[in-house]
Amino acid sequence: MIAEIISIGSELLKGMVVNTNAAYLAGELTALGLTCRYQTTVGDNKERLAEVLKVAMGRADFVILAGGMGLTKDDVTKEVCALTCGRRLVKDKNVEETIRQRLKTVQDRDEGSVVKQATVPEGCIVMENHIGTAPGVILKENDVTLILLPGKPEELHAMFVESARPYLEKERIAAFESQTVKLVGVSESDVAEAIDDLMDEQGNPSIAAYAKTGEIHLIVTAKGDDDKKAKKMLKPVIKELKNRFNEHIYTTQPDVTLEESLVELLVLNQLTVSTVESCTGGLVAGRIINVPGVSEVFKMGHITYSNKAKRKIIGVKRSTLDKYGAVSDPVAREMAKGGCNMAKTDVSVSVTGVAGPTGGTENKPVGLVYIGCCVKGKTTAREYHFSGNRAMIRESAVSAALVLMRECVLEYVSELTFGKKK
Amino acid sequence: MIAEIISIGSELLKGMVVNTNAAYLAGELTALGLTCRYQTTVGDNKERLAEVLKVAMGRADFVILAGGMGLTKDDVTKEVCALTCGRRLVKDKNVEETIRQRLKTVQDRDEGSVVKQATVPEGCIVMENHIGTAPGVILKENDVTLILLPGKPEELHAMFVESARPYLEKERIAAFESQTVKLVGVSESDVAEAIDDLMDEQGNPSIAAYAKTGEIHLIVTAKGDDDKKAKKMLKPVIKELKNRFNEHIYTTQPDVTLEESLVELLVLNQLTVSTVESCTGGLVAGRIINVPGVSEVFKMGHITYSNKAKRKIIGVKRSTLDKYGAVSDPVAREMAKGGCNMAKTDVSVSVTGVAGPTGGTENKPVGLVYIGCCVKGKTTAREYHFSGNRAMIRESAVSAALVLMRECVLEYVSELTFGKKK
Repeated sequence: MIAEIISIGSELLKGMVVNTNAAYLAGELTALGLTCRYQTTVGDNKERLAEVLKVAMGRADFVILAGGMGLTKDDVTKEVCALTCGRRLVKDKNVEETIRQRLKTVQDRDEGSVVKQATVPEGCIVMENHIGTAPGVILKENDVTLILLPGKPEELHAMFVESARPYLEKERIAAFESQTVKLVGVSESDVAEAIDDLMDEQGNPSIAAYAKTGEIHLIVTAKGDDDKKAKKMLKPVIKELKNRFNEHIYTTQPDVTLEESLVELLVLNQLTVSTVESCTGGLVAGRIINVPGVSEVFKMGHITYSNKAKRKIIGVKRSTLDKYGAVSDPVAREMAKGGCNMAKTDVSVSVTGVAGPTGGTENKPVGLVYIGCCVKGKTTAREYHFSGNRAMIRESAVSAALVLMRECVLEYVSELTFGKKK
Repeated sequence: MIAEIISIGSELLKGMVVNTNAAYLAGELTALGLTCRYQTTVGDNKERLAEVLKVAMGRADFVILAGGMGLTKDDVTKEVCALTCGRRLVKDKNVEETIRQRLKTVQDRDEGSVVKQATVPEGCIVMENHIGTAPGVILKENDVTLILLPGKPEELHAMFVESARPYLEKERIAAFESQTVKLVGVSESDVAEAIDDLMDEQGNPSIAAYAKTGEIHLIVTAKGDDDKKAKKMLKPVIKELKNRFNEHIYTTQPDVTLEESLVELLVLNQLTVSTVESCTGGLVAGRIINVPGVSEVFKMGHITYSNKAKRKIIGVKRSTLDKYGAVSDPVAREMAKGGCNMAKTDVSVSVTGVAGPTGGTENKPVGLVYIGCCVKGKTTAREYHFSGNRAMIRESAVSAALVLMRECVLEYVSELTFGKKK
């Protein structure tokens, strides 16, 4: 079934706010198995909204409208939808009562506003708003269903989860289930090649691949007669992907980030961690520390931007710096090892590189980065060549550092487990 | 004149990424004095893109297309635009040469991809891509101009600033000039109140206010018969804003960031800097280090996440930690002071706080953050209460740290200059 999203608000057209609602709704609708082909944004303008709405109703089963549901005269969504479907706007006693209750405790508004907020298209389903005052509306017109949501992201999220999603789950014909498989340490082209035989877009389950910085996400979606059957169909495909990518998979849960899976791995194995960063200047630590509860394992971080800092804080040898330069494999190793010594942690990761835009040479061009990782005395270092501007090179280096840490910790754990270390 | 934005990419329709390009372009087009009435998003699909493009060309003077410019068979924007305008796709020798040069140093791609990337609609203006390989295209067809930009935000920004904006500035009929005034250290409502008398939307020049994390950007736009006249009209308004907000203004240039203005201030006054971070875990250093050439002043950073790290690396007293707790004014002060001592820098900034989601108490709730700054021995500390989730609290703290640093450095400089220090 086809869904389409219309976002309403002049602030979107002027670029004053980023349209996060459209991404949120698109993700939710896709997860429900609905196909979205168009998203449109219009201002608070009756004629243009009506025009866009008519086009959408001609090509979609569900039209989701976000915004323009407030109490000012700019807010035209309910009026335009009622007019387009040939319905009157009528006052809803329950909604009015709720708004009066809410306003008593929040702030006073004039009578006209309350009445406007409390009117809805005749014959619609009203969705309650537990955060703000604007109610939501579900309006069925022949084969098309309009779903009107408030524009404030918190109100929209809450109402979608509480009312719109359950409604859509009942309405869609087939059941869809999807699962995400997140990969690191493999290139986009290697992944594409490895699953070429599974990538038929029309297939069921289908697999879609998305490249993020340093990561590839595979989304597997199955369509079945009911939720249980769809879920069952997912299983063999997920199993097959696990076979093909094994240790490259860091999670199969949509909400788990790379840093979360890394911190979980460290906590599980009771390994403490520290960082020693040069060109990434704190961003590796910054990402690790974004995980709640990280204080169990993260001890300290060092930003050794100057050579002096590398020597003084971390104990990188002057001779190593002189002989190989700050951006080199041996310095990355000494930084990682020095991090473990200095912070007294089991694991330490180091980054040294040329982020640009200046500072590159023929031998050490912009984008050259060395990343080191020391786990319980064993140090690994690797050379990388990243492209893009300064921010992109640093972002790529941060991802690569997390990936290398994960790899080194996994290796350590597997050696422990299988006793190869003896 | 009317502009319209079309974003192309199935990842947008599935909600995998938030469409920041549309907001960026909308803001830029509005600043140029162009009116945007619609934004549309479509997938990588020839028929649907062609349909949307035709509609847009019927109602806009400029159609900006973002995305679908890469080398895979999914990327259809150039092809659809050429077809719609009845042009052939031809190979551009210059573009081909540039791509080959670029790919030699980055990674090899197959011949077909290079050729595809190097073809452009006949008779178009080619915009160079200095970050990636996909060129941009300007295509004039009767009264409508199509502007095709790559979808990756960094490439799109760079190309818009370098090529598309200058082109649009020449093409629009009336001359518009705009200037950005960026403010820190004032609240949104204070700004609104302070410029209420200047905020007439229909006025010329007009002022629009945009709130970012920790910052407020005012965009002043003047419309005149020619560039010179428009520029002249801006001057008294900018002067008036400078009078009203003086030291709260950190730049009046659109592309200068807070960290850039801060690093410039440090370099200008030959002040070296270090950081000592707890809950922000490296992100303050990370933002400072994103400024090219920062190595002149940034020496080292410390991420003292644990109490032990605060004591051992920075020399925060155990008695202070025991008496006041890690999240406190005295600890923030000792961290900043210790940062200067340890790193031997003129300036050091410190952050300690409760980023949540757990760890809050009645006295020290989630969102409580203390920021300290030491400049040449004089230490300032301030208490903040931020709201939002862990990432939002940390982001707010990073901005506040940069703002406090700027304020303390300015105070030091002004004391030096006006001799109050005697």
